[in-house]
Amino acid sequence: MSDVVSIDPRSGEVVEVVAVETGPAEVDRLAQAAAAAAQPLDALGRAARGALLRALADALEDRRADIVGVADRETALGTTRLNGELTRTTYQFRLFADVLDEGSYVEAAIDHAGDSPMGPRPDLRRMLVPMGPVAVFGASNFPLAFSVPGGDTASALAAGCPVVVKAHGAHPATSQLVFDVMSAAATAVGAPEGTLAIVHGVDAGARLVQHPAIRAVGFTGSLTGGRAIVELIEARPDPVPFYGELSSLNPVVVTPAAAAERAAEIGRGLGASVTLGAGQFCTKPGLSFVPTGPAGDSLVAEMAGSFAGVDPHVLLSERIALAYAEGIEQLTSTPGLTTVARGDAASGSGYVAAPLLLSAAAGSLPRAAHEELFGPVAVVARYTDETELLTALAELPASLTMTVHTGDEDDELPAAVTRALGDRSGRILFNGYPTGVAVTWAQHHGGPWPSTNTAHTSVGTSAIRRFLRPVAWQSAPQSLLPPELREADPGIPRRIDGVLVLPAGGR
Amino acid sequence: MSDVVSIDPRSGEVVEVVAVETGPAEVDRLAQAAAAAAQPLDALGRAARGALLRALADALEDRRADIVGVADRETALGTTRLNGELTRTTYQFRLFADVLDEGSYVEAAIDHAGDSPMGPRPDLRRMLVPMGPVAVFGASNFPLAFSVPGGDTASALAAGCPVVVKAHGAHPATSQLVFDVMSAAATAVGAPEGTLAIVHGVDAGARLVQHPAIRAVGFTGSLTGGRAIVELIEARPDPVPFYGELSSLNPVVVTPAAAAERAAEIGRGLGASVTLGAGQFCTKPGLSFVPTGPAGDSLVAEMAGSFAGVDPHVLLSERIALAYAEGIEQLTSTPGLTTVARGDAASGSGYVAAPLLLSAAAGSLPRAAHEELFGPVAVVARYTDETELLTALAELPASLTMTVHTGDEDDELPAAVTRALGDRSGRILFNGYPTGVAVTWAQHHGGPWPSTNTAHTSVGTSAIRRFLRPVAWQSAPQSLLPPELREADPGIPRRIDGVLVLPAGGR
Repeated sequence: MSDVVSIDPRSGEVVEVVAVETGPAEVDRLAQAAAAAAQPLDALGRAARGALLRALADALEDRRADIVGVADRETALGTTRLNGELTRTTYQFRLFADVLDEGSYVEAAIDHAGDSPMGPRPDLRRMLVPMGPVAVFGASNFPLAFSVPGGDTASALAAGCPVVVKAHGAHPATSQLVFDVMSAAATAVGAPEGTLAIVHGVDAGARLVQHPAIRAVGFTGSLTGGRAIVELIEARPDPVPFYGELSSLNPVVVTPAAAAERAAEIGRGLGASVTLGAGQFCTKPGLSFVPTGPAGDSLVAEMAGSFAGVDPHVLLSERIALAYAEGIEQLTSTPGLTTVARGDAASGSGYVAAPLLLSAAAGSLPRAAHEELFGPVAVVARYTDETELLTALAELPASLTMTVHTGDEDDELPAAVTRALGDRSGRILFNGYPTGVAVTWAQHHGGPWPSTNTAHTSVGTSAIRRFLRPVAWQSAPQSLLPPELREADPGIPRRIDGVLVLPAGGR
Repeated sequence: MSDVVSIDPRSGEVVEVVAVETGPAEVDRLAQAAAAAAQPLDALGRAARGALLRALADALEDRRADIVGVADRETALGTTRLNGELTRTTYQFRLFADVLDEGSYVEAAIDHAGDSPMGPRPDLRRMLVPMGPVAVFGASNFPLAFSVPGGDTASALAAGCPVVVKAHGAHPATSQLVFDVMSAAATAVGAPEGTLAIVHGVDAGARLVQHPAIRAVGFTGSLTGGRAIVELIEARPDPVPFYGELSSLNPVVVTPAAAAERAAEIGRGLGASVTLGAGQFCTKPGLSFVPTGPAGDSLVAEMAGSFAGVDPHVLLSERIALAYAEGIEQLTSTPGLTTVARGDAASGSGYVAAPLLLSAAAGSLPRAAHEELFGPVAVVARYTDETELLTALAELPASLTMTVHTGDEDDELPAAVTRALGDRSGRILFNGYPTGVAVTWAQHHGGPWPSTNTAHTSVGTSAIRRFLRPVAWQSAPQSLLPPELREADPGIPRRIDGVLVLPAGGR
């Protein structure tokens, strides 16, 4: 069995052996334990699962210094960023506890028996119930918020689904530490054995998604990785839902009026957004449309300042560093793309990467500029007029986000840009930057393929819905109904005979 | 180009040539017209789309006699059933118009800008928007309610998505007539050109699901057909959602107490449910668990009465008739399955089928009894005690429905049966029969694979959600927001700063 090692990306050296890769028998045992935990975890009810989520948040908070320390050593993302990420992670657990308290998420509906144009209708009651054990694939780029304690895990546990996490190979020590902390906390508050498990290794992950006990898969990662998992799932006798967040270009449009009014501010903002976390955000603005002319020139010059002269960024893993090196080699040799700024060439040990800003004419934008490339690289597409801009936008792939920077003098252009890209975007931003995704009720982090393959992803409260399925009860005795569907007011919003009714006591 | 012919299943003869198979260029033209209709259909808004749906219902009602006549001639389902099906179809259009008026379905949420533990949070507003053109595959067994004017079409149009229907080859004349009626009605109320289209032929269907303009696929049909479409979709550069309702066994459990109390009634009810529509319902109870002993014997004897001696049933198509003949040949020669009753052997012309009731011991139930077989056939599994029953239930595949018949003396058994099968069932019925699926807010018609591949199907109001995707607007000017997300109360339920708020005027 191969060792699972933790590498310091600042040096490229192995720091410790974390575990051995999880073998097939152990994967099966963990998946079966998760299956055994499914009914008891559901039976805990919403209040007790809310308490479990809050206990997990508290436990992570208690070990903040240790967790951030290991994660920084293993990812080089810096303690400021990682402290923020842990805060986001614990906030997320507590938000899902609030979602459980509020109770709308079960979508309880009661239609009493009655007549219909098709004849007598039986009593029908419907709500969402947990799907069963969920496999979660941790992402490389957020060792906390999209990994073992991330949105997939939080939303699946909230839904009442046991979770088996496949730890990401780029941060196994962080994954194992966080798992140990969470597992102990879950046991302490009486969660069923098998509620949470972890596996290490690519083969273990493949076996996991094909295990009969696994009822859904959450994934944040590359398009290639996502398609590989889809193939494994489609080969099951019973394909299960796959929720993938895959690839995103995140186009930005700066209108001529915006450039005229705020060239320096927007240029700095874009540069900071592209290079944040060494350019390893799924919402990195990879392609920005900037008008030709002096205002646009100033904007690009300001943006270039973020790219030239900064210290080399450290990437998360050797794999990402190699892909970045290949990618920028391809981009810098693509006809039609001009290098605007390049940071110091990578030197020394570790997974260092020089930031790179390229430019092209929007009217003849090479296809290479449509591809997401992880790391501190971006392309600026210069457009001469609205027609050239809108023609170029029509060719773009779908993304998690689109952004428009507007000026006071703008009239129709922002609406035209939104119309042009809106059908291929999950979040439409005005005068902001797509990195930094707030966790709220109204958030949406998703978009048509290739950004995601489903309506919902792991960010925001609707993430819970991915791990629930509807069940209708017909003419059921009260005693065999879940509490949420009995006649007595359970204190949650319900749709009764077609009318949405808030709980009697209010909230 | 091959002719598309309409066959009379009562004779097996071709009655008319309905059309020619739709060629590739025409498929492309229709898909592109659907794409062009997407923004205008969305822009109509909820009220105008509700009016469109009601106009479609009125138009179908106006041509009731013609439609039912053609459908009966083409499907042999009988005018009583088909009149009921048309009523269900028009009711469904009007129910979706109500869903649009009520407005919850867009899931409008507003989080005003504010502070969070992660720092300042921008204004975020989220709702569901139409996905774009939808391909709908008509089902063989419901020429109206699950075909051109069925739940997929109604819910997609309600969502604001143009629809291209692939007409089912078993009822092309009904499909074309209904399409012509709906298309004229849509034009008359000002629906955008391209809102609704129809194609004929297997190749046209395959080209349709791979067309770039198509953004989702709705399908009701066989597991084999569904998997073939999934393969076509996965070969797209941008796989789109596939919503399939595929295969279902629909197990029924009769407890000893129920058999003791109501043997004759349950036996007759089961027999009627199995043979309804010549056994071609996706909710046909294909496998019933009945206790051994005299009460169970009486029940089975009563059920057998529905199978022996009735006139031969007419199946929908030559394909279904051949599959039925093969299937019952296999079942009657399977060791462990005993023929209890068999209708008159098929004779004469047309797609006639003799009904067949088989029996087995629950403790040694052959796997063949786990397979859905379209047509008037069912298996009764006799159990001696609770352990044998629960062991057999644990082996069953997932289904759209499960049913328990209970008696006054029942204590724990109904709960145990529900626990045993509940995680593999979409609807849990007590003391009823799974055929006849009411269209209501609280209905759910779905279940884990192989019954469906997604949480929602084409029955009930949540069907609309399949054709919607979330979009979040960040810091958007009011003028660029949809009306549902502006500050002014749009008269629909919304979640504002995390709290569900009903419209000011009430409903």
